Amino acid sequence: MEIHTCLRSSVKAFDFKEEDYTSLKEAFPQAKITSHDSYGSLKKSGEQARLLLTWNLRSKDYQLFPNLKTVITPAAGNDWVESDPKSKVPVIYGTFHGEMLEESILGAVFFMNQKMNLMVKNYQNQGWDRNIQSQCRLMKNQTLLIIGHGNIGKHCSSLFKRMGLNVLAINRSGGNEEKEKGVFGREFLHDLLPKADHVVLILPGEESNKGFLNKQLLLLCKPGAFIYNFGRGNALRSEALESAMDHLGGAFLDVTDTEPLARESQLWRNEKVMITPHSSCVYKEYKPLFIDEVIERLSAFQN
Amino acid sequence: MEIHTCLRSSVKAFDFKEEDYTSLKEAFPQAKITSHDSYGSLKKSGEQARLLLTWNLRSKDYQLFPNLKTVITPAAGNDWVESDPKSKVPVIYGTFHGEMLEESILGAVFFMNQKMNLMVKNYQNQGWDRNIQSQCRLMKNQTLLIIGHGNIGKHCSSLFKRMGLNVLAINRSGGNEEKEKGVFGREFLHDLLPKADHVVLILPGEESNKGFLNKQLLLLCKPGAFIYNFGRGNALRSEALESAMDHLGGAFLDVTDTEPLARESQLWRNEKVMITPHSSCVYKEYKPLFIDEVIERLSAFQN
Repeated sequence: MEIHTCLRSSVKAFDFKEEDYTSLKEAFPQAKITSHDSYGSLKKSGEQARLLLTWNLRSKDYQLFPNLKTVITPAAGNDWVESDPKSKVPVIYGTFHGEMLEESILGAVFFMNQKMNLMVKNYQNQGWDRNIQSQCRLMKNQTLLIIGHGNIGKHCSSLFKRMGLNVLAINRSGGNEEKEKGVFGREFLHDLLPKADHVVLILPGEESNKGFLNKQLLLLCKPGAFIYNFGRGNALRSEALESAMDHLGGAFLDVTDTEPLARESQLWRNEKVMITPHSSCVYKEYKPLFIDEVIERLSAFQN
Repeated sequence: MEIHTCLRSSVKAFDFKEEDYTSLKEAFPQAKITSHDSYGSLKKSGEQARLLLTWNLRSKDYQLFPNLKTVITPAAGNDWVESDPKSKVPVIYGTFHGEMLEESILGAVFFMNQKMNLMVKNYQNQGWDRNIQSQCRLMKNQTLLIIGHGNIGKHCSSLFKRMGLNVLAINRSGGNEEKEKGVFGREFLHDLLPKADHVVLILPGEESNKGFLNKQLLLLCKPGAFIYNFGRGNALRSEALESAMDHLGGAFLDVTDTEPLARESQLWRNEKVMITPHSSCVYKEYKPLFIDEVIERLSAFQN
């Protein structure tokens, strides 16, 4: 088996170097693993490559790899690896993000619920204002709605329930069978939005989700509700969010409709908003979790 | 039963008004409940008072209440209500703080673990630096040590374990029986400190705990460990913490040795530090939780 990898990134947590493949090499001592520093170099591996581990692959480039059997990418969505125009080579997307996202999102919910943006300002001003959090409520007495209940959403549900939160979820495929577990189809959105203290978007970036949580739906949320976007930025237009901010309690965005968010956006200057730079999976565990998943998948192929 | 209350505070969450006693009145329709706006007014209730609900009571003032049977205070510690010099009137301290503190402390642990102080600065500067959190690790792969494992500590243990954290605890009375549940006596402090990624102080404010986590012990912590103080400020001197900050990953203080912390303290100007103004119980639930506890205690007396 000849494996060619190109997993370099300006984000250190996602930048795989030679040493990050050690456990993969140990698991498959017969495999020849070649790590490329650039996409240009990867493309030159040509007919040798049986398996690619890569951040990027264009449809037109599949023809360069005539013996390619599988592509594995750490990304959770098909944003950077396009599909094979001949539909011969399957692309396997990462499914290891749940345990990172569940902690990042829970951290964001705590951050908003405890008004930590204002508390940090209070600290920076050497303030001792004990009334900033007067209206804060215990999370275990609140309801959280997850929109997009795939692999990541299910991880979040499980953790948030263990925290004592009342968790509801909306899924495209949420049918009768799942309803009892608090998972509902999209037709229930209008019923559930007004019930939630926290609304968490974890939708994939596909075209049909563009502008999903529009102004009308944002205004349907409970007054003072907190909105979170940890899926893809296109599901929540920044203009729609800006125009609904008076109604909402706040918003925590890890993804935005353009990244970075445009400098002129009012969301940079709103006390009720927090923005992180698409960093919900920036953890030391990112690389080992991906390599563990690769080993698991390759072992399954061999059995 | 004649109940006299004086639970006014400049902290809105702790400031009980007439309407906050509604459920108490409903539970004990025969009781006469008088709410005083000042300690001076409370003292005038004199021989009528059978039960006091108060933030403050001085030893010398017990003589003013010859028919007093019990004092109930929301405070968790004996900082403001002194004991009866004649040892006739018991003081009941609040034990309802656990469910608030467990959320405040978990929020603080998330805040430090995800470097949210630096992430807020990044946001304030309209930055998009995706490498700030590169060294962050998942909480479920980490060890948290609770020092002071009373009622509040036990609440925290339970929640943090549900989160998947490895929780250790140190208790003055931690003996053999408890050891199996991860609770150890103080003689194990030197063994456990180097193992913990997060060290949470929840010690009561008594004299013997003064300066408990001294510089020597702070330097015994794992390099990069995070320190939290949510008990009383005197257990951790700010000078000791300042002098150990190069060794530590950061500190989150809800209480400080003087409150507010002295303006000249370097802890106000350290990027690795976050300070909140003794606000770990500032929740809308504070007042109803206390009144629920009062009702429960009074019902027990009547049975």
